[in-house]
Amino acid sequence: MSSPFRKIKGGVGAPKGFLTSAVSAGIKNPEATRLDMALIYSQHPCVAAATFTTNRVKAAPVRVSQAHMRDRDVQAILANSGNANACTGVKGVQDARYCAKTIAKGLGLRQGQVAVCSTGVIGLPMPMVRVEPKLPELVEKLARKQGTEVSQAIMTSDTTNKEIALSMDIDGHKVRIGACAKGAGMICPSMATMLCFITTDANIGKENLNKSVQEAVENSFNRITIDGDMSTNDTVVVLANGQSGMPRIKRNSKACRLFREALNVVMLEMAKSLVRDGERVTKFVTVEVKGARTYNDAKKVAEAVANSSLVKSSWNGNDPNWGRIIHAVGYSRASIREELIDIHIGGKPACLGGLESDTSMEDLRKVVSEDQFTITIDLHLGSAEYCVYSSDLSPEYIDFNRSEYAYWKQARKDGLTQQ
Amino acid sequence: MSSPFRKIKGGVGAPKGFLTSAVSAGIKNPEATRLDMALIYSQHPCVAAATFTTNRVKAAPVRVSQAHMRDRDVQAILANSGNANACTGVKGVQDARYCAKTIAKGLGLRQGQVAVCSTGVIGLPMPMVRVEPKLPELVEKLARKQGTEVSQAIMTSDTTNKEIALSMDIDGHKVRIGACAKGAGMICPSMATMLCFITTDANIGKENLNKSVQEAVENSFNRITIDGDMSTNDTVVVLANGQSGMPRIKRNSKACRLFREALNVVMLEMAKSLVRDGERVTKFVTVEVKGARTYNDAKKVAEAVANSSLVKSSWNGNDPNWGRIIHAVGYSRASIREELIDIHIGGKPACLGGLESDTSMEDLRKVVSEDQFTITIDLHLGSAEYCVYSSDLSPEYIDFNRSEYAYWKQARKDGLTQQ
Repeated sequence: MSSPFRKIKGGVGAPKGFLTSAVSAGIKNPEATRLDMALIYSQHPCVAAATFTTNRVKAAPVRVSQAHMRDRDVQAILANSGNANACTGVKGVQDARYCAKTIAKGLGLRQGQVAVCSTGVIGLPMPMVRVEPKLPELVEKLARKQGTEVSQAIMTSDTTNKEIALSMDIDGHKVRIGACAKGAGMICPSMATMLCFITTDANIGKENLNKSVQEAVENSFNRITIDGDMSTNDTVVVLANGQSGMPRIKRNSKACRLFREALNVVMLEMAKSLVRDGERVTKFVTVEVKGARTYNDAKKVAEAVANSSLVKSSWNGNDPNWGRIIHAVGYSRASIREELIDIHIGGKPACLGGLESDTSMEDLRKVVSEDQFTITIDLHLGSAEYCVYSSDLSPEYIDFNRSEYAYWKQARKDGLTQQ
Repeated sequence: MSSPFRKIKGGVGAPKGFLTSAVSAGIKNPEATRLDMALIYSQHPCVAAATFTTNRVKAAPVRVSQAHMRDRDVQAILANSGNANACTGVKGVQDARYCAKTIAKGLGLRQGQVAVCSTGVIGLPMPMVRVEPKLPELVEKLARKQGTEVSQAIMTSDTTNKEIALSMDIDGHKVRIGACAKGAGMICPSMATMLCFITTDANIGKENLNKSVQEAVENSFNRITIDGDMSTNDTVVVLANGQSGMPRIKRNSKACRLFREALNVVMLEMAKSLVRDGERVTKFVTVEVKGARTYNDAKKVAEAVANSSLVKSSWNGNDPNWGRIIHAVGYSRASIREELIDIHIGGKPACLGGLESDTSMEDLRKVVSEDQFTITIDLHLGSAEYCVYSSDLSPEYIDFNRSEYAYWKQARKDGLTQQ
């Protein structure tokens, strides 16, 4: 069966009726020329859905955007990298609101129709002196075919920009969906330091879009883990403007299933690309759990294994250490029976019934020496399954995360901090 | 007020009526001459109490010792390093039972009076060919004043042996308590790859000893974390033989309080020494949480901060990164209000009311550059407190844990594995 989706170019700029722009404001470093602010705008009214970090410490733009999402349908997204505007108090919220208001005025929208998203260092005020002059410029530069620049402007420690766009045929109409994302550090289930923006010209109602987005996030971004940390800024925003000309998608229709599948494909592709580009990651590891008594048990086991520093260190060393895997299974708090547990590494049995198999260590080493492999854990207690996308943990990750001191030095130069 | 306790020499051999021995069996490496098996024996009947790993994958010796503790009062402890005898199935349990039985025969005890404890690599059978001939030797070599050798024989990746002994005066009788412990990797709340043996000549009933041990473990070993992993073999065993000549300790008496305090001091000292000697650890960090609504909330916050890879990496880099600390507070699932959170680093305010303080970054850097400091997090929501003893996470830790492949090669030479 051939896929119903065709990959197309243009990322979030690909769907009909969306304009984008990106500029360089030097938020983190005034001398830098890389893009660090972006705007996504639908020329027509939109239906919007979003999910936000579950961290109880929320960045100012998350609070502001959450309120805007409740208020009315968002039609534009302003994003920046270099500063998370988190732990910045009342001033942070004022800054985020000011940005939304200024963009809204430029676009002829209400303030509540602009979502604001930030990613970068926590605890430093936004350098508004450099941000403010760029807001009108972002509005002026809005144009078609600039979607890729948005994916570049939201990068932080990402080494590559991440975007995708698909087109599909629904009821004889060409429908497009585009996405960009950024990740790198602090990637963990239940959302991460992660921004993902999705645009589509599909015609879908608010409730249906909400449900579709929640399901797709659960199957993608909530299943990835790099370092077990969860950020203050994670946000997924989806805008649907109906400009494909298709009739409204009905619940449970063939069109609905096709649209949801497209949304799943797009989010899963973005989520996997975040893991692959995790900070100093060398391996992409799928941890599959099956035979669990309950869905929650399967999830607990998969997450315990995928988050274990010892397991992740062993992958970094090409060590097919199933002993460390089974010990993580043991402390996961799921129902297990040690003597029933099978562990396969790249399809080869490493542990059968809780004991070592007779697969040679060399064969298992060959698998974990590759840059992508799957660990399958069968608990043989039921039929529930779960899967997590994980990575190794490298000495270089720690080294990379040892200090953000340089940011503070710049912030002091900017007069933004006394510390 | 002067301490009621005097430090004395001799570790687990210090209390009256305890004999110890240690030998070199070459468990991990037949050519090595380091001590790797030890025996602790009370010449008189004992009251015993123990706590074991909560990992659902339990090593064979843990299962065997748990059964023996239920059976009757243990009077001897056999311990080895180099092999954990975990995930070794029926054969592992047979091996552990065989060892207990052989030692019991040599000492004129029943099998159920000997506890067995193992630490080392998971998933490989015990090299009984080297272990078996050493069992009679351990019994023959039993003597006074050899306690320190026990602490050496249980070391794995520990860089120093860990022991302590105190004497105190209870009701005019000199009472002694001695301990040894090993730790290094996989240290996490709710027990760790950790063995701790405690001997005392205090006279205490079984129920009272059990309660005292549980309380002391809760305040010490369950509050330490190095890498968030929890092992299959953790065990604390306490033997009390009453040979000090003191009358039986009554519940809620002054003698009871003094004994419990001594047990707390000894366990806390051992627990802290495990963190200090954690794999490639360079800093000892106390994470104090106060002002929480509930004890559980305080615990969640302390553990989230103390286990965050990003927070621990920043300590390694001498970076007083309170932004990462507050983000861990946020995802801890405790009740918090961001705008009330104060964070002090070494007593200096770093974050007040959720915002940066005016303490200079240099002052804060000075604190986290030291090899020991305290992070205090005040949630200002109640009066519950908790504290965890943690460490930094170094690139060298990952490097150190990348591969245990060498063990497998030796095991194959020994004919113990086909892998």
